[in-house]
Amino acid sequence: MAEKPIRFGIIGCADIARKLSRAITLAPNAELSAVASRSLDKASAFAKANNFPPSAKIYGSYEDVLDDPEIDAVYVPLPTSLHVKWACLVAQKKKHILLEKPVGLNVTELDKIVEACEANGVQIMDGTMWIHNPRTHKMKEFLNDKERFGELKNMHSCFTFAADEDFLKNDIRVKSDLDALGALGDAGWYGIRSILWAVDYELPKTVTALPGAVLNEAGVILSCGAALHWEDGKVATFHCSFLAHLTMDITAIGTAGTLHLNDFIIPFGEKEASFTTVSKSGFTDLVTGWVPVPSQHTVTTDLPQEACMVSEFARLVGNIKANGAKPDPKWPSISRKTQLVLDAVTTSIAQGSKPVEI
Amino acid sequence: MAEKPIRFGIIGCADIARKLSRAITLAPNAELSAVASRSLDKASAFAKANNFPPSAKIYGSYEDVLDDPEIDAVYVPLPTSLHVKWACLVAQKKKHILLEKPVGLNVTELDKIVEACEANGVQIMDGTMWIHNPRTHKMKEFLNDKERFGELKNMHSCFTFAADEDFLKNDIRVKSDLDALGALGDAGWYGIRSILWAVDYELPKTVTALPGAVLNEAGVILSCGAALHWEDGKVATFHCSFLAHLTMDITAIGTAGTLHLNDFIIPFGEKEASFTTVSKSGFTDLVTGWVPVPSQHTVTTDLPQEACMVSEFARLVGNIKANGAKPDPKWPSISRKTQLVLDAVTTSIAQGSKPVEI
Repeated sequence: MAEKPIRFGIIGCADIARKLSRAITLAPNAELSAVASRSLDKASAFAKANNFPPSAKIYGSYEDVLDDPEIDAVYVPLPTSLHVKWACLVAQKKKHILLEKPVGLNVTELDKIVEACEANGVQIMDGTMWIHNPRTHKMKEFLNDKERFGELKNMHSCFTFAADEDFLKNDIRVKSDLDALGALGDAGWYGIRSILWAVDYELPKTVTALPGAVLNEAGVILSCGAALHWEDGKVATFHCSFLAHLTMDITAIGTAGTLHLNDFIIPFGEKEASFTTVSKSGFTDLVTGWVPVPSQHTVTTDLPQEACMVSEFARLVGNIKANGAKPDPKWPSISRKTQLVLDAVTTSIAQGSKPVEI
Repeated sequence: MAEKPIRFGIIGCADIARKLSRAITLAPNAELSAVASRSLDKASAFAKANNFPPSAKIYGSYEDVLDDPEIDAVYVPLPTSLHVKWACLVAQKKKHILLEKPVGLNVTELDKIVEACEANGVQIMDGTMWIHNPRTHKMKEFLNDKERFGELKNMHSCFTFAADEDFLKNDIRVKSDLDALGALGDAGWYGIRSILWAVDYELPKTVTALPGAVLNEAGVILSCGAALHWEDGKVATFHCSFLAHLTMDITAIGTAGTLHLNDFIIPFGEKEASFTTVSKSGFTDLVTGWVPVPSQHTVTTDLPQEACMVSEFARLVGNIKANGAKPDPKWPSISRKTQLVLDAVTTSIAQGSKPVEI
């Protein structure tokens, strides 16, 4: 007999919550059960616009979701500065947490959240969707393949998009009291995660901000980059920005092969996604061409990546509920490592690009 | 009446000279006229193996080429440490110089060479072939297009290849007395040039080596990277290495568009070469895909890029010879800027990644 789907409540009607509502609808083991806004009207309009089932509850306060005994898990798309308060409250109510990224303003905040989750036996997972795309698993197979890829030596990752005037003036991601990490938290989070993902989440020894970080008048990062360095010689760079055209690249270079893709966070289309690999390539005799040339691999996806994320999260929650399983520590662990590197970048920027040891 | 082709002499039978011999043969306005090695047998074997015409002269010393009144131009593929001596001698003999990169061990050496060229009215051009590929001109049209690309904000470039054990032990590019700039001179040269090319050769304000440079026992760079920063906020990074799989990327991000290619130095094949652009892209309503997606542009080439280089160099030389034109100062100028940045990288590495002002 199929287990009952995990019942999700959403607190906050951020734009990203529209996408997650659809994902929860699409995930076979999840159910859209409640939405709350500080305004009941707003919550109601959101539920209507996002095809909530008639059974879904509409609340005018976040606390109502937390107090609802029929809610298993809460998706938290609130501004980063509200994460520590609300995620801890969610955990204390013994509800599992799908938490938007960046998870906190710093690792101390995340540690409070994770502590609350551990104390209450609930699962936490951050909202990094691309990690759950089937393409990502296929790419990892390549990176783990000693024959085709070898040992990672260098990686570059970037995520930029050209925010418009309104965004740069009014979006919560440029406000020091809401998402104070700016482009680093919103876009750089993915670059850092992608690098950690590629190295099996081995933390670098040092993180050094690159010269040229751009901050707005409130001190919020609009553009920055950093270099990561591991003791064994691996090096990686990432760049993130609200000020440059939409770009999302990974180049991972091993001793025996190279991985490329240009849409790692949001695939160009949601039904299938591609990446390029090449192994043991060299030049023709007169160095006038490559042998072999790179080849493209396409992975089709039954579910959009955000629904894969919801489904995996719901599976873990279901396992805890039905079988008394322990929460999977992998997810808070990789959130924490991402946040640690992110914190090191902000420290290095504040110190004029001094290397920061982790 | 067609002008007479420019008669080339080659001093030194380096591997790269094989490719250039073919290029001189293919270029319609150039002629393979002489080759010299320190050993007459070696020069003779080289000429035979590389389809030199029967009229070509075979010399057992470099001086013989310089003294030959029938030679217009000399291609110099010697180890970098010999450039300043031989390029100055070539210039003093009033022969034009196609000089392999890196042009010198430092900008002081290059300045001596350029001074000798100016004093003798000869053209100098460095051997950066990809700059002459018709694809490169098409890409520059995109980068110069304010509508499609906007203003450059960020760029990343890399060139790596996995040298084998023999190379890492015996190649001149790992020897401190021959090509002391190692991977930076051999591979990083291209990354630096590509960045300067993209910004219309505007020198950066600062150059900062990235942590993690790898040097061999003799102090020759095997792997390194750097961040470049301009006063107006542009930032760029490059990575070069003998220790990672063959990779040669450019990602250039403007305010309105992005350029990608993964074979910028040696195109995958020599008959045609591609690049990818995307302009004013954004996400679908629910951020589940891109609109528009990137598109690929393919440029066919009548001549391989190295023959385009020879042809352009020969055209300039022919114009000097036939019409008393002045040497084109663009070429030594871009060589010098490339070398200046390269010097800044070595300085920054020596100073533990301190930013170096240019």
